[in-house]
Amino acid sequence: MISGGGPTLAVVGATGAVGAVLRGLLSERQDVWGEIRLIGSPRSAGRKLSVRGEEVEVLPLGEEALAGADVVLLLVPDEVAAQWAPVAVGQGAVVVDGSAAFRMDPDVPLVVPEINAHAARVRPRGIIANPDCTTLAMIVAVGALHSEWGLDELIVSSYQAVSGSGREGVATLREQLALVAGTELGTKPGDVRRALGDTVPYPAPIALNVVPFAGTLAQDGWTSEELKVRDETRKVLSLPDLRVSATCVRVPVITGHSLSVHARFEREVSVSGAHEILANAPGVVLCDDPAEGEFPTPADVVGTDPTWVGRVRRSLDDPRVLELFVCGDNLRKGAALNAVQIAEAVASGH
Amino acid sequence: MISGGGPTLAVVGATGAVGAVLRGLLSERQDVWGEIRLIGSPRSAGRKLSVRGEEVEVLPLGEEALAGADVVLLLVPDEVAAQWAPVAVGQGAVVVDGSAAFRMDPDVPLVVPEINAHAARVRPRGIIANPDCTTLAMIVAVGALHSEWGLDELIVSSYQAVSGSGREGVATLREQLALVAGTELGTKPGDVRRALGDTVPYPAPIALNVVPFAGTLAQDGWTSEELKVRDETRKVLSLPDLRVSATCVRVPVITGHSLSVHARFEREVSVSGAHEILANAPGVVLCDDPAEGEFPTPADVVGTDPTWVGRVRRSLDDPRVLELFVCGDNLRKGAALNAVQIAEAVASGH
Repeated sequence: MISGGGPTLAVVGATGAVGAVLRGLLSERQDVWGEIRLIGSPRSAGRKLSVRGEEVEVLPLGEEALAGADVVLLLVPDEVAAQWAPVAVGQGAVVVDGSAAFRMDPDVPLVVPEINAHAARVRPRGIIANPDCTTLAMIVAVGALHSEWGLDELIVSSYQAVSGSGREGVATLREQLALVAGTELGTKPGDVRRALGDTVPYPAPIALNVVPFAGTLAQDGWTSEELKVRDETRKVLSLPDLRVSATCVRVPVITGHSLSVHARFEREVSVSGAHEILANAPGVVLCDDPAEGEFPTPADVVGTDPTWVGRVRRSLDDPRVLELFVCGDNLRKGAALNAVQIAEAVASGH
Repeated sequence: MISGGGPTLAVVGATGAVGAVLRGLLSERQDVWGEIRLIGSPRSAGRKLSVRGEEVEVLPLGEEALAGADVVLLLVPDEVAAQWAPVAVGQGAVVVDGSAAFRMDPDVPLVVPEINAHAARVRPRGIIANPDCTTLAMIVAVGALHSEWGLDELIVSSYQAVSGSGREGVATLREQLALVAGTELGTKPGDVRRALGDTVPYPAPIALNVVPFAGTLAQDGWTSEELKVRDETRKVLSLPDLRVSATCVRVPVITGHSLSVHARFEREVSVSGAHEILANAPGVVLCDDPAEGEFPTPADVVGTDPTWVGRVRRSLDDPRVLELFVCGDNLRKGAALNAVQIAEAVASGH
């Protein structure tokens, strides 16, 4: 195991879909870490996983595995994060939490380094939260435009990939595609649903379909996923009263979340101005020449780090409104990459 | 051939994807027609197609085929409609045109019978236009809510099926699905695009992807499809200054257009009020109990006539705003059914 003078990073949940992407990122990026510890459930303990070109044995989650870590990165469900984040902090670590457990805690900063890196330095509970993948799909682009024009209202509809539901989502779409490919399904009422039977983890078929329901039912008909976009956008942009409406829809794409964004600003906007802002924004790639077939699609941006932005139009009815179509890899910037960026920021200030 | 005392209907473009659905509808619905003539390109003339349980020979499009028809229903491209609609009118027919050729002509009514049936009676040019499938996917539901609360602004994002591009779109998606099913594609940059090669008629892969571009590039970055939603909604609802923003996105669904709708009204709205309006609106089915997994999806509504509405929420920030998710069969209400409804209204007033 490489162990230089750098801080020790412990990754909890190293074996999942996001964990796999995270290990890839740690291997590709400039290496700021001394020891990197991989931690999983007792069930996966003892497995060997590759990171930075070395095979590392997965340790079982517990106080012993966390002891001495400088930064603990949690890629685990909310309830596991709620339990173990305070334990890691109690042992002296800074926790970067990918779950929703602490995101809305006023004593926990919610950080997107391109936008509010400074917020990561004030962490009364020793915890820094990583936003949800749907918020992260558009927040870097929207944040850049906000800096210039002042965001007034945000209305988004998502096209979310199945890997946002983890490995089960991907397996389900692949299985369903195998059953519908080569058939005439998709032309009669309910024929896809009948052919597929069980649709878990989704409440409806995902092959040859779109499912306008992601997360759990929360409040007044809104889903947890839709409220996360609202709450987290407000917190990251420090706009507690921002009007936000989100509709979250799952689509039959493996990886790559897309959002149709309707953003109203305080000041008049222009497409050329938006192009200039987006072309210079860190973490953003402008891809907007529809006459040449240039606009982002999930199939083209999967596996890449930036937020891709295209289809930039100004409203024909309101000079303060911009429309955008944004795509990003929900496992990279939408999860592992943003978490690693936060962890590196902590390490550099360590 | 059945030929009662009713008017003669001539269907031009009877052999296409919408034509096939239209023949099915004419066979299912209460029969108001005397003769039904099927007309196609010279290439398809002589083929026999089934309608009302009879085999009818396809006639080649020309003055002779149109002679004596009372209603001529055009299911053909814009340029063919522009050429032949005046010919049919000149021979004494009323034309119901499914193309975009005449939709924005101030002397041509644009009709959705549930909303503005009266408009079909004033037709200075003898032509009645049928709206685009994307407008038709939501206009019946939105129109019902408008009658009660007064529509002030409409922001929509679409999830459009490939059959909206005709048989070529369906064939392309089926071919692409056969190539991606059983593979690990969809996880690396551009891997789907490389595996598929040619993506015609779409500017990007449609399997395992979404394509934020439908129609042609029109004005200031907006597509023809997006501007149709704006222009046609204004005309059908007689709201020439309505603010409308649409983002049109193709998704890997065979049939069934969906729209995420954000609608702001002049008056305060409520979910219970919206439920009551929608439950009583002709041509609408309310399907909104997400706690029980009830919301519309294209796989469930394909092959049905109504506009299905679910996910009804009131904005948490603006009591005048409703969010809806609507689905409808783009070949039925989105094309053939609305045209047949118009033709029947003309026939009943004949």
